[in-house]
Order: sequence, then structure tokens, then C-alpha cells
Amino acid sequence: MQSTMMRVPLSTNALLERAGRYFATREVVSRRPDKSLHRTTYGDIRRRARQLAKALVERAGIRPGDAVATLQWNHAAHLECYFGIPAAGAVLHTVNLRLSPEDVAYVVADAGDRLIIVDDVMLPLWERVVPLLEVVPRVVVHAFSGQPVPAGYEDYETFIAGNAEDYVYPAQDENDAVAMCHTSGTTGRPKGVVYSHRSMVLHALASCASDLFGTSASDNVLVITPMFHANAWAMPYSATMVGAKMVFPGPHMAGPDLLDLMEGERISLTLGVPTICNMILQVLQAGPARTFAGPIRMLVGGAAAPVSLIRGLDGFGIHIRHAWGMTETSPLGSVSYTRPEDAVLDAEEQAKVRALQGTASPMVEMRIIDEAGAECPWDGTTSGELQVRGPWITGGYHNLPPDPEKISADGWLRTGDVATIDPIGRMRIADRTKDLIKSGGEWISSVELENAVMGHPAIAEAAVVAIAHPKWDERPLVVAVRKPGCDVTGDDIRQYLAPHFARWQLPDDYAFIDAIPRSSTGKFLKHELRRQFADMISRTP
Amino acid sequence: MQSTMMRVPLSTNALLERAGRYFATREVVSRRPDKSLHRTTYGDIRRRARQLAKALVERAGIRPGDAVATLQWNHAAHLECYFGIPAAGAVLHTVNLRLSPEDVAYVVADAGDRLIIVDDVMLPLWERVVPLLEVVPRVVVHAFSGQPVPAGYEDYETFIAGNAEDYVYPAQDENDAVAMCHTSGTTGRPKGVVYSHRSMVLHALASCASDLFGTSASDNVLVITPMFHANAWAMPYSATMVGAKMVFPGPHMAGPDLLDLMEGERISLTLGVPTICNMILQVLQAGPARTFAGPIRMLVGGAAAPVSLIRGLDGFGIHIRHAWGMTETSPLGSVSYTRPEDAVLDAEEQAKVRALQGTASPMVEMRIIDEAGAECPWDGTTSGELQVRGPWITGGYHNLPPDPEKISADGWLRTGDVATIDPIGRMRIADRTKDLIKSGGEWISSVELENAVMGHPAIAEAAVVAIAHPKWDERPLVVAVRKPGCDVTGDDIRQYLAPHFARWQLPDDYAFIDAIPRSSTGKFLKHELRRQFADMISRTP
Repeated sequence: MQSTMMRVPLSTNALLERAGRYFATREVVSRRPDKSLHRTTYGDIRRRARQLAKALVERAGIRPGDAVATLQWNHAAHLECYFGIPAAGAVLHTVNLRLSPEDVAYVVADAGDRLIIVDDVMLPLWERVVPLLEVVPRVVVHAFSGQPVPAGYEDYETFIAGNAEDYVYPAQDENDAVAMCHTSGTTGRPKGVVYSHRSMVLHALASCASDLFGTSASDNVLVITPMFHANAWAMPYSATMVGAKMVFPGPHMAGPDLLDLMEGERISLTLGVPTICNMILQVLQAGPARTFAGPIRMLVGGAAAPVSLIRGLDGFGIHIRHAWGMTETSPLGSVSYTRPEDAVLDAEEQAKVRALQGTASPMVEMRIIDEAGAECPWDGTTSGELQVRGPWITGGYHNLPPDPEKISADGWLRTGDVATIDPIGRMRIADRTKDLIKSGGEWISSVELENAVMGHPAIAEAAVVAIAHPKWDERPLVVAVRKPGCDVTGDDIRQYLAPHFARWQLPDDYAFIDAIPRSSTGKFLKHELRRQFADMISRTP
Repeated sequence: MQSTMMRVPLSTNALLERAGRYFATREVVSRRPDKSLHRTTYGDIRRRARQLAKALVERAGIRPGDAVATLQWNHAAHLECYFGIPAAGAVLHTVNLRLSPEDVAYVVADAGDRLIIVDDVMLPLWERVVPLLEVVPRVVVHAFSGQPVPAGYEDYETFIAGNAEDYVYPAQDENDAVAMCHTSGTTGRPKGVVYSHRSMVLHALASCASDLFGTSASDNVLVITPMFHANAWAMPYSATMVGAKMVFPGPHMAGPDLLDLMEGERISLTLGVPTICNMILQVLQAGPARTFAGPIRMLVGGAAAPVSLIRGLDGFGIHIRHAWGMTETSPLGSVSYTRPEDAVLDAEEQAKVRALQGTASPMVEMRIIDEAGAECPWDGTTSGELQVRGPWITGGYHNLPPDPEKISADGWLRTGDVATIDPIGRMRIADRTKDLIKSGGEWISSVELENAVMGHPAIAEAAVVAIAHPKWDERPLVVAVRKPGCDVTGDDIRQYLAPHFARWQLPDDYAFIDAIPRSSTGKFLKHELRRQFADMISRTP
């Protein structure tokens, strides 16, 4: 027997059309660099995204499958790119504006970007990138600051000008690429993950379920997570799909600025890393009192939110919902939510449940694998490498050959995280992936730093581990062994590293010891170093 | 650029595994014929559904794509069939137990059912079907009554006995057929709609969104809508996916019985036709007072729920959420929900919004088409034929050639409903499809009745239209013209029809006139008849 169902491909174009027809007057609000608020609507977003698509095809000769990059803050024009670039049949490549010029140049070349849309305020970074590129994409500049676009640059408004109501979306398969993010990952260069129309729409549908993000037409959503970071939890797609009001903070990420938006725009849902939550909690605790329109759900991912943070924000009407995911998982992997059987627990115990990384989303499978390759029991204590599988999980990386260190022989993504899963399927990340430091929600690779430090002529060997920081959660500590007779200082090393790393990646903390402890097989014993420096607090300002 | 996403097919098997692993202890409650409550869990549902799958493959030789039927009330064993039959690679064919033996025989033959699982209490119907079948499927009997299975029949428990933890799901494409329902449609014979794994999973994902059904792990769901009727809004799939407790009323559909379950099982979500809502409201109004655990969301579809009903139930803490759909649409087409801009309206005006058929679900497109084939404006007043399109909408019927009366040339389902759509996309069914009578949520085809009545030797011509009934909403009125010299009565006609229709389809109301009004092209002017008999109330008991 054959199914009689229509074969309609999933497409982000359908989400844009839905918002434009059903939620045409619903607001999209963006904070500009001068802190003023720009207000538009889904009706206009649809209209302008179609204009962008038409311009890409007709003015820039963009062809299906071409990569088109953005180097932008969170704002309405970036949302237009989220839809307008795929609407041209092209691939939205969101470039992380916190990368070093070298890394930006690398990812632009890796994606083969044919055009890039740059916020005017990001031109200083972009102009350091250009000399590093063999092939420079066409540049279109968005006047985010409100100032005229600098001479010599093509203005985004001019580029998209015209009427596109006659624009016809190109024929498209649902497995066609729609967007690309680069991981700021573990070892070596950033790696490209390429999403499809299918994966993005499935992800949007799943994320709106009540137990997950529960995004609704009645929500006012403050998108704090950067849109260049794992699609901002793909909220730009799902909130548009359901017609939620979206509010973008632009470059203003300070606690009081975010709280002003939460009050003024009657926010009911927001998302960010624990660093942001912590900052918000500290501002709230310092006062003055804030008046929210109602309870606020706050999706938190990227690092563990401690119970004290969850409880603290509860007291101010901001309720953390813990999620786990990564660039490779679109990023929704799991969400922690209380179940009916948790009703008997007191608030503190419930917060412990909420602090878990939670239950896998529908369509996402999880397992934990021990070092021998066997599946670990779901007993809440046995830990193993977390592996995941599903229609919005990557099965490889752009331009890279299959790697059994990344994708298992039977097709599961090896996350590198070490986790436990309890008998009812609630996952907890037990150990941070050992070689990474998470600073303000962004990964810093200790291996890259180590390799660079060890390139210094006066250094014998070096290891980099995470130490605590009150604002950024973690910062890198360089533990180095001087070569005999050398008296190199931390400042010397910092200066030596500076040209090769973004500012926020540069370590401010250095320790010198006689020898790095090693395992029998000669590997650094980083857990030994972590134990040794456990009480150290980073002095990063 | 190619997407790097995994190619993981959508499958109902994944929903079953999810519930079995994550919600193993969550309850599934069924009311038996003797009104006692049977309690099981998703852990057991998973275990037994796999046993059923293994038995179908190994004991009954069922092959991928074979149809396996159910003739069952709503209960846990039927839920096992919802998952176990697809888990065998077979197609779940839910047979409407309110059909006449002739129609049951027709749909069983049309599907080519190779095996049928029958509730023991439905054997009297089934035994009237068997003589009408050329090929009789293997029969397995579920002892729903609690009595031993009658001699000569294969017992469901014996059939599924054994351990199936080693059972491996057959390889499957997401477009493979998973389930089949027959419409009890407009003209002629019931028509088969065949769902796919893909359509069913997409439908489940979409329906759990907050603005639609919002089904959650915290919900206790009373499934009143029959599981043989458009998959009971596919709630058996979506509630299982999220681990909601499910409660099945079995054959006990009286208001007090349903309210007992709503109280005792702490129901938070339920679904049914307006007839059921009306009945519940009347019982509540008559008292005694009921104490619910909290507010109850009630999904209503199948016919229009009047504002008075919505407001009446609001007063008792039962909040209607109006949906529109049909067997052909899986069935979720649209849901009416208030939006932020409706907050300024008073409760009465909000109820009017809630009484609309609402906003199309994500992934479902709607349009209204005038008689000339042009698209009507979305102005809330211009009406046209409602046409829909999407990945869980049928593009044809099983065993039937393409029909431009059913599917438009450009691939949209022609619903036969006449609707308006307002400027923000809210749809309202303006005119019931002209040739149907909706009695207690079930369609009765006026054309079939007319054809039968006109077969009576004393009848010249006849038309059948709907008239009002306080409980069943609508009942058929036969308007007939006697042949000259004949004095046939309504009772005579009823007796003449009885062998050919189910009891509930038989008209109790008859009127005799001199001539049926006709249009210039010779068609019956039914709207003229409806006007003429507008005040008539059916005397069906």
C-alpha cells in the first residue's frame, strides 16, 4: 500500500510567507548602536527578505547553493538575511564577529562566500580580514549605526531596493543547504556545519512544543544569544513561524540594557548563556526593582547553570529552562523540564532537576558510550561519551573527510562531552570536554593556545586549563615550563600571542612550574593541573 | 554547497521508543465495558506493541505495506495497535465501528486487510460483515469485556505472547504508509486516505506547539474522539511522543461518565465534537458541581462550536480551543487561538474569535477559490471553496484514479467546504458542504440516502437535507414526492431503507411535497428546501 499524502518539501520560505500573511503587523524591534529602538513588522520583514532574495539573484548573480555571509549583530536586517538568503536558493553563512581576522578569513574561504553583508560598525574587523583573503566576496554594507555607508561601499538599502512581490522562490529540495555555522571548536580550525531546509523546519516545529521552548504567538522574545552562534537556538526561524514578537539587543549586552528591554518590551521568553543570566541576576539584586509584564521563561544553554542561579532568578520572576545543544545539533538537543512526578519535590529539589541538561527532544536520540565502545547503562551515575543522532544533527563537516573521531562508525555524532543519563532519560554533562575553556559562552581551545605558547623560544612546555572568573565563568590559565636559563614572563607570552588570537581569547593568567605532570603514555595530566590551581581566580578585567 | 545533516527518516517507531524509555512509568488508563478502569504504562505499551509487531511478522506472515485492521473502541490495546502495526512495517487500518456491515465489508476489501483485531464486544457487528466478504482476513480477538474470548477465535493475548526485546524494526522509508482511514464522505463509497510515517510525525510535532494543542508531559489527556475517526486528531501519536498520560473512555460516552474521568483522572486536555461538549455542558449545568484538578483545554472540531457553548463551558473551567480538519488532513488543518491584539476584547468578543475555525497550522497552506477558479481576497467576507496543501494533506485516495473534483490541477485538496478568511488569516467555515448531514459528529451522506429512497417503487423523487436536533446537531430529513396514486408513508420508507444503512444513519423525519424545487440546470435546489424546513426539529429519540 502506498501513502496518498502530498509530497510537499519542507522549506524556510514557508515560514517567511506564514509570518508575512498571518502576522504582518506583529513587531520586530532592534536596538541600534546609539541605543535607539528600530521598529518594524513581519509584513516588512517578508517584503524586504524577498527584495534581498531578488537582488541576490538578479543583481549579484547568486546561484542555488552559493554561500552568502553575514557579519552582523542581532537585529531586524539580520533576520531578513536569515530568510532572504535561503529565499534566493543560497546558503546563509553567519560569521562569528568575535573571531580573529585570521579565523574570519579562514571561514569565509572555507565556505567560499560569494557575497557578505556587513554591519557598518563591523567594518574595522572586516577591513583587517580583506588582506588575508585570496578571493574577496562582494561586500554589501548595512548602515546599522544610522550613519551613511562609508564611501566605496555598496549600501544594503540600495542593493535590496525595488519591488519583489513578483519574486518566485527557486524550486528546492528539502535537503538543500539553507545555512552554515562554523564551530569554534576543540582542536585546529573552525569546522563548517551545513543545515538543510528540512533540518531547520523540523527543528523549528519541535522547539515550539510546550515542553521545549513553547514559543507562541503570544510571546515577546528577547534574542540575546548571538545570531552568529548556532543560529541563536534557531529562534529567528521558530519565532517567525509562530508570529512571536522578536526583540534584538544589537550590540548592547550589558545587564541594565537587557533588563530595560525586558521591562519595556514586555518580554516573556528570552535565551542566553549562564554568564548573561548571572549578570542579569547581579543587576537585579543590586536594584532598583524591575516590573515585568509577567513571568519570563529564560532558555539557558552553552554551559551549566548552577542551582543557585536558577533559584536566584526564580525570585525575580525569571524562570530558567535549561537546554543542551551545540552548533552540530542545530542546536536543540535536550531541555530540562519538571514532570508530574516532580511535583512532590520542594523548590530546591525541583531546581536540581531543572539544572540537568534534560530530556532529549523528540527526534533526537542520545546514548553514552564507554571507552571500550559499549553503551553505558542509564543509571544516573555511569558516565560515558555523549553521542547523538537525529534529522537535525550533523553527520559530518563541510569540506572535511569523514572522521571516526567525530562521527561513529554507525553514524552517531560524538559530542566530546562526558555525560550520565538517569533511568528516566535525563542527561547531565558530567565533565566538560577536557580541552576547552568556556569564556562568556564562547569556546576557547586550550590546544591552540598551548601550541602557540610552546612556539615561544623561551618555553619548554605548556598546558592551558580553565580557571574560574566571576563574570566570564572560565578563563584560560597558561601553565608553562621555562627553558633553563630563560626568565620569560606572562606579559612576554601575552605579547607573543596577541597577533594570533582575538582579544577575548588571550590569556591574562600565567603560572610557571618545573614540569607538567604527565601520564604513563606521556600525555599531560590536565586534571592534575586543574586540581593544583582549583582555587585560582582569573584576573581578566 | 551540500547539507551535512544526517539523513534520519521520520518514523512512528521513534515515538514509541521515546515513550518507552523516557516515560516508562507514565499511565495509560482505559475504561472497560463494565466501567472498571484498566491501568497500564508507556513501558508496557512499548513492550506489548513490539510483541504485536513480532507476532504479525512471525506468526501471521505480515509483510511491509500489508494492511492490518482494527475494529475497536478507544483503549490501551488499540494504542498498542497504533504503534505495533506500523512497527511490523504494516499499515494500521482503523475501521469505523459505526458503519453498516456493508460499509465495513467495503472498506475491509478496499484496504485488502490481511488481519483484523476486533474487540470481543464488536464481534456481533463483525459476524454480520464476514458473509459479505470474498476474502476474510485472519481475525484476532481482544477480550475487552474481560470475558474469555469466544470459542473458535484467536485470542489477542495468546497471539502477542512472548518476548520481543530482540525485535528489530524493519528498514523503512519515511514516505512508507503507516495508517489508513476511510472517509464517511460525500457521495458514494467511503474513500481511503493513507498516511505516511513522515506525515504522522510532522503532524505530531506541529500539534504539540503551544498555540495548537500544546500537548505536554504534564498533561492528562482524555481521548473522547474515536480512534477510528481521523486518528483521534492523531493524539495517540503526539501524546505518546511527549509522554502525556492518556485516558480512554472505552464505550462509555455519556456525559456523567466522561465527567467522572475528567475529575478522577485529573484531566487537563480533552478533545471531541460539539455534540459531546454540549452534552457535558448540560450535565454540568444540571449539577452536582464537579471539582477539576485545574483548567481543562478542550479541542473541538468536526462541526462549529457556537459562542454560547464556548462561554458556557468557560464558566465551568473547560476552555474550548476550536480546530478544523478532516480525515484528508490527518486531521490538523487550523486552530483558533487568541492573539495579543485580542487582549483588548471582552470575553464575549474573544469567544467569537475562538469560535472561528482559526489559523492554518505551520506547514499547512490555505486558500479560497471562487466558482471561476480565482483566488478570493482575505477580507473576512468573500467566501469560496476552501483548498489546502501541506505535507500531511492527502493528494489523492487509495485505489481511486486522480479526480479534479477532489484535487485541483495545481495540487491542492478541494475540501468542499465554503469558507472566508480574514485579513490576518483566520478562517471561518461559512457554509457546510451542501450534501452532508453531520449527526453526532459523524457524516451522513444525503446523496446516498436520496439514491436509496428514490429506489422505492412508490417514490417519484426525493431530496435529503439536514434539520436541527438538540442532541445530535443535525439529522436527515427526507423530502419526497409520491408517485401519482401512491400513499407510501415515512414509516414505509424507513423500513425499506433499514437493511442498507446503519441504525444511526436511518432518517426518522419525512415530509411529502408536490415537487422538489430545481435549478435551471435541473439540480435540486437544496437551499430552497432548507429554507422551507428551517424551523423543523428532528424527532429522533
